[in-house]
Amino acid sequence: MDDRKCLTLLTDFGLHDSYVGVMKGVMAQINPSLTVVDLTHQIPPQNVALASFSLMTAFPYFPKGTIHVAVVDPGVGSRRRAIAVAVGVDSQQPAGILVGPDNGLFSGVLSQNSVIMAVELSNPQYWRTSEPSSTFHGRDLFAPVGAYLASGVSLNELGHEISPETLVKLKLPPVSTERSGNYTVKFKGIIQAVDHFGNLITNISGDLVFGREWNVLVNHQLLPGRQTYSDRPPGEPLALVGSHGWVEIAVSHGNAQSLLQLDWGDGVEVIVKES
Amino acid sequence: MDDRKCLTLLTDFGLHDSYVGVMKGVMAQINPSLTVVDLTHQIPPQNVALASFSLMTAFPYFPKGTIHVAVVDPGVGSRRRAIAVAVGVDSQQPAGILVGPDNGLFSGVLSQNSVIMAVELSNPQYWRTSEPSSTFHGRDLFAPVGAYLASGVSLNELGHEISPETLVKLKLPPVSTERSGNYTVKFKGIIQAVDHFGNLITNISGDLVFGREWNVLVNHQLLPGRQTYSDRPPGEPLALVGSHGWVEIAVSHGNAQSLLQLDWGDGVEVIVKES
Amino acid sequence: MDDRKCLTLLTDFGLHDSYVGVMKGVMAQINPSLTVVDLTHQIPPQNVALASFSLMTAFPYFPKGTIHVAVVDPGVGSRRRAIAVAVGVDSQQPAGILVGPDNGLFSGVLSQNSVIMAVELSNPQYWRTSEPSSTFHGRDLFAPVGAYLASGVSLNELGHEISPETLVKLKLPPVSTERSGNYTVKFKGIIQAVDHFGNLITNISGDLVFGREWNVLVNHQLLPGRQTYSDRPPGEPLALVGSHGWVEIAVSHGNAQSLLQLDWGDGVEVIVKES
Repeated sequence: MDDRKCLTLLTDFGLHDSYVGVMKGVMAQINPSLTVVDLTHQIPPQNVALASFSLMTAFPYFPKGTIHVAVVDPGVGSRRRAIAVAVGVDSQQPAGILVGPDNGLFSGVLSQNSVIMAVELSNPQYWRTSEPSSTFHGRDLFAPVGAYLASGVSLNELGHEISPETLVKLKLPPVSTERSGNYTVKFKGIIQAVDHFGNLITNISGDLVFGREWNVLVNHQLLPGRQTYSDRPPGEPLALVGSHGWVEIAVSHGNAQSLLQLDWGDGVEVIVKES
Repeated sequence: MDDRKCLTLLTDFGLHDSYVGVMKGVMAQINPSLTVVDLTHQIPPQNVALASFSLMTAFPYFPKGTIHVAVVDPGVGSRRRAIAVAVGVDSQQPAGILVGPDNGLFSGVLSQNSVIMAVELSNPQYWRTSEPSSTFHGRDLFAPVGAYLASGVSLNELGHEISPETLVKLKLPPVSTERSGNYTVKFKGIIQAVDHFGNLITNISGDLVFGREWNVLVNHQLLPGRQTYSDRPPGEPLALVGSHGWVEIAVSHGNAQSLLQLDWGDGVEVIVKES
Repeated sequence: MDDRKCLTLLTDFGLHDSYVGVMKGVMAQINPSLTVVDLTHQIPPQNVALASFSLMTAFPYFPKGTIHVAVVDPGVGSRRRAIAVAVGVDSQQPAGILVGPDNGLFSGVLSQNSVIMAVELSNPQYWRTSEPSSTFHGRDLFAPVGAYLASGVSLNELGHEISPETLVKLKLPPVSTERSGNYTVKFKGIIQAVDHFGNLITNISGDLVFGREWNVLVNHQLLPGRQTYSDRPPGEPLALVGSHGWVEIAVSHGNAQSLLQLDWGDGVEVIVKES
């Protein structure tokens, strides 16, 4: 065991080109013994909302102090800020440090964690070059800044402090609540992500159905709320609280997105019987 | 050089979501200096047979004592067992340790290696939480158990011993042998895997054709048995003994799956002239 | 910080099979503490030209002395040579060492770097086995040679020296120059790569347009030369000097390959106004 810092990467660069490798090369030039973990590089191009979801759901599972470099950056080269944000409750040991463009990418993590300190990356001493390209800040700013942070450089050396209130945040449509009759509550939300298995992840928290009898109404179809995939026969759709903690629609041994023909942003109702 | 253990991951999680990254985060929380190698995360969802093939063919190339965490787990949350199995001949230094669901995923490796000891993962002290989710044992059981094994925890601390005979095994259809005439033997098998290049890998061992004159009959087409791709002109199909050790159908500078319109499970005959 | 060597991998093996994992297993058997960076494994099968481009554009961003193992090898098993080439200006500290087949894969790097020493990999002591398979030299030659190089074995132990002039090189079609009128120069080139975002990367150097007013003519359409993606409204095509240093055609918040229906090899004209 050693005390080396973990560093994660999340981008929309895909894996066909060497862009991700180049970022790792730049980091290895600064510190060849970093532990770098790929979260994903297959965020659909420029989809900041899905990137925010993906980072939010992965964040809690990393060691305290992990550096998360995230680059989904359609505004690269424009006036959007480049930032680093320490979050958590202990300024001596942040839960994690976020590095990337200030475009909403960190909304998810920021909705679940307090900001300890935020800086704009204005100190070119920690960039790859003092004249970064206008199209690849992942290579020229974010990778080197991440590597320096993971090597012991402190946040306030990287630039000037900015107010946490000014950080760009995406807004998820709020979940609405509706009482229908004496013993039933309806929560209306949307599908906020679709995963590789075709599971449809809603923006309705699993806490709302915990210990209750519940169903999901979607596309005029009523799906039973269950514990796990195998609580239904293969091919049958169901709802459950996914490993992320959100209500999720799935098909046992199958693909809910194909079967139900639903996608990102589609509406969903969770109907809970009160005891 | 150091004596750190190598740990591999094989899943059907794909690379679009952060599920694999989350497993690595959980492992880094336990031991930040592990060397983690991705075997593949693109097993077709829930295809336990192909996962077994993929692990079997990679297993011999890793250092002794490597921990192989494999999660293709359609039965997650049901009563299927979670297991760890040490294989090899030397109990002080196993060839490797397998960690994952007991659903046949390890059939391939187990067909080529002896079991030293098998345990059911019943000790929650080595799980991420004593109440694992019912949908993501990769994160809650298998990743932490793998990380603890790679950090020196011994197999019998992880749970209670189970009999190797009770481990779930998939059955590959057997290869049949048929003598036709005095000097010819036919082996009938199937295509057990198709790789990224469109090479069609059969379940017929290359040992059966070693040093002989041989052909493959597939889809009414007779293909010559050769040494390597470039023994045929570009675009021409051939058979050879692939790097896995199985008879394989390929196209020089091309894609055999597209050209011959064959797929997983299709029948194949290898015709060998006896000397 | 330590002085461990960085090693990169670039192949056309894809990520569905365990071929890449197997190479890493072989390397871990030799040295379990290597830092291995994946450049990409999704070079289109057997596309040596694109592999050469990808390695060339990544090469400058890695630490001095990095070992680059590249395997896009349609001629495996034929008489093409297996090579290792140290490049740079300082024989005590090469810019990098290239390991792979002698089929043009290193053309791009060699066009921008001097050769310090080239050897044919004729010493089986540093192979995985003295009888390598005829189809997978990535596993049997290049991975072990790369791991030994990264562990301190010197180039001249790996085989006999060969003349740099004999190394196979691909030829990019040259960029032609045409003066039209007093104040205009036209450079005619081609699209040499298309990236994951659909950006079309030409073979015309960004130096030719630096500080000038310029446009790109492609498919009867005139695109303005700008600094960055956001200099145009979303959905509008433009030309810019990409992060690689080449003139690139892009669409702000969009995909130039789809919008303009252009592909690898298509002709492009850059029109520059002289001041």
